Amino acid sequence: MSSQPPHPTVLIPGPIEYDDEVLKAMSHYSEPHTAVPFVKVFGETLTMLRQLFQTTNPNSQPFVINGSGTLGWDQVAANLAERGDDVLVLHTGYFADSFADCFETYGVKATQLKAPIGDRPQLDEVEKALKEKEYKILTVTHTDTSTGVLSEIKALSELVHRVSPNTLVVVDGVCSVACEEIRFDDWGIDVVLTATQKAIGVPAGLSILMASERAIERFRARSTPPPSYYGSWKNWLPVMQNYEAKKPSYFATPSPQLIHALHTSLTQILSRPLEERFRLHKEASQKVKKAVAELGLKQLPTKPENEANGMTAIYLPEGLTPPEILPKLIAKGIIFAGGLHKEIATKYIRFGHMGVSVTDPKRDDLDKAIKALKEGLAEVSQK
Amino acid sequence: MSSQPPHPTVLIPGPIEYDDEVLKAMSHYSEPHTAVPFVKVFGETLTMLRQLFQTTNPNSQPFVINGSGTLGWDQVAANLAERGDDVLVLHTGYFADSFADCFETYGVKATQLKAPIGDRPQLDEVEKALKEKEYKILTVTHTDTSTGVLSEIKALSELVHRVSPNTLVVVDGVCSVACEEIRFDDWGIDVVLTATQKAIGVPAGLSILMASERAIERFRARSTPPPSYYGSWKNWLPVMQNYEAKKPSYFATPSPQLIHALHTSLTQILSRPLEERFRLHKEASQKVKKAVAELGLKQLPTKPENEANGMTAIYLPEGLTPPEILPKLIAKGIIFAGGLHKEIATKYIRFGHMGVSVTDPKRDDLDKAIKALKEGLAEVSQK
Repeated sequence: MSSQPPHPTVLIPGPIEYDDEVLKAMSHYSEPHTAVPFVKVFGETLTMLRQLFQTTNPNSQPFVINGSGTLGWDQVAANLAERGDDVLVLHTGYFADSFADCFETYGVKATQLKAPIGDRPQLDEVEKALKEKEYKILTVTHTDTSTGVLSEIKALSELVHRVSPNTLVVVDGVCSVACEEIRFDDWGIDVVLTATQKAIGVPAGLSILMASERAIERFRARSTPPPSYYGSWKNWLPVMQNYEAKKPSYFATPSPQLIHALHTSLTQILSRPLEERFRLHKEASQKVKKAVAELGLKQLPTKPENEANGMTAIYLPEGLTPPEILPKLIAKGIIFAGGLHKEIATKYIRFGHMGVSVTDPKRDDLDKAIKALKEGLAEVSQK
Repeated sequence: MSSQPPHPTVLIPGPIEYDDEVLKAMSHYSEPHTAVPFVKVFGETLTMLRQLFQTTNPNSQPFVINGSGTLGWDQVAANLAERGDDVLVLHTGYFADSFADCFETYGVKATQLKAPIGDRPQLDEVEKALKEKEYKILTVTHTDTSTGVLSEIKALSELVHRVSPNTLVVVDGVCSVACEEIRFDDWGIDVVLTATQKAIGVPAGLSILMASERAIERFRARSTPPPSYYGSWKNWLPVMQNYEAKKPSYFATPSPQLIHALHTSLTQILSRPLEERFRLHKEASQKVKKAVAELGLKQLPTKPENEANGMTAIYLPEGLTPPEILPKLIAKGIIFAGGLHKEIATKYIRFGHMGVSVTDPKRDDLDKAIKALKEGLAEVSQK
């Protein structure tokens, strides 16, 4: 039995449902951020992130900073690019627009390569773009939370290394880390940035980022200082390195409670093979997508290979809007999200299937959600 | 009886000991950040912050953003100053150096007005400095956590308004909000920035800031866009205004759990008159300072009016260092902090007395701490 009070099941593409032990860790008693017990927990957490991202290069560098996932964009824009640099932003929805906006804030020129809604830029288009200009960075949203479109990180990274070997490969993994396969070293990725409240399964409040040895070298070779203070690796890099070496260090006060919760969740995640975790998410996703098809509904992603495994973006039947169906689902104890992509926001809903709702065999969240969706649609169509 | 497991009492100048109900709120079950129940809690939290800061001007603007207190500096530097502007930073310890560093990061010229260790810049010195140059902002650390020096906000603000009326008055209240009197409207303050893990009594992870109507107008009149993305009020202002109006809004995902905890703590704080809270902190501080004097120890602050009420910075007896005494105190269940001011870090310790350790009559944290300090010093001197 869960120790949580009864509440509607949160099946949006983040925040997700949390494990009891993770929530318990959130209420950890107070500890100084520089005392031995917490330094150990923070250090172990950083080391576990290396395992989660599948990097064994000791010069890869994890960062865990108080903030939202959005802070990861500032970290990339302020530490890995310089004013006047060109970067290429692959667009699969809402989040590419925002990442580009973040780059522009720091005087970095962001060129967007857009795909039609539900699709992703094709490799040959990316290749063409990379050959036209010297881009310092290419960014890609692994799972675009606004559309449920999945990008192909391995093939993209191979392409970048072949065609434009000086371009850093930056992955926005906010909605993919811990539910989609990411092999940081093997795939030659330079940065994955993410947040806690999606498949990692920890309440929001931490910006998590993994940087490659090459990214750290690029940072060190900057000709200008980073134009951010709170987001500057000049301030954070020694702190992260010290904590992982179990030495206290200070730039800004971390949140011991959130880091205890992250430690608890990562311990759970890494107690079983990551391959199994990714397989479970794929199977759950297939089950949801099959049920959606059986209800006669279409997904936003236009091809099976574009479909994310941690969420499903579902077009509603013609004429039905999210405000008409979502409250019916809440009445059945299930929370889905409305649309987020501006052009079609009133036409679709989003169903998140990540973390304990997928991996905990004691939960039947997805079956309940599929049943609620079916019943809710039937009720609406009877009117 | 506390529901927390036994643990050493944290009496450093933040993080502090937390109330059981606040820690319980940290483990709140998952909720969507845009759903009605959480929007209500976030909105109420913003409104309660107005009461905490004693502002009734509806055009004052509270901000609550995932991050450390440090993010408040970025908010000030990136939203209220522009490249090339001059700002005056009053120096009472470590944190002025860092705030100045933050301004310089954004191309803002920070002039520091320094006082000897344990003292604060005098009003006539500040007046002279303000007359020499047109400063856009004056910053002052209300309680400098590195030295325990208190600044005189009311008199300073009056001086600034009289001598340099276009200069914004910015108070770093990380170690003072909720334990030192701050009358935002009455004293004509433009910004107070703070964090949660000190006298507000909530685990670290939120940057809290109150901006005056004048500060918001200054922000709106900028000739250049804010040079930060994550810290930009362009992104956060509509979000804060919407949440307080009980309308969901999105820029980056807030942390419902931390905000539930903040809601719980603010509800407790505001359930009694603020004057009483400040008086309790003053009385506790006097008790600690009297005990310190009786032990023959000196404080860092050189005059009684320089002494903060939320912490006490204590010089150790000649020849004794923090690593010799602090572990003895931990063995007695009390955690104090070592020195932080670079020039004298090995010569003093810091005793924080804020929040429930002061206000909860069921706790005897301070008596235990004073006893432990006395016994610890006796043990060391016997060797």
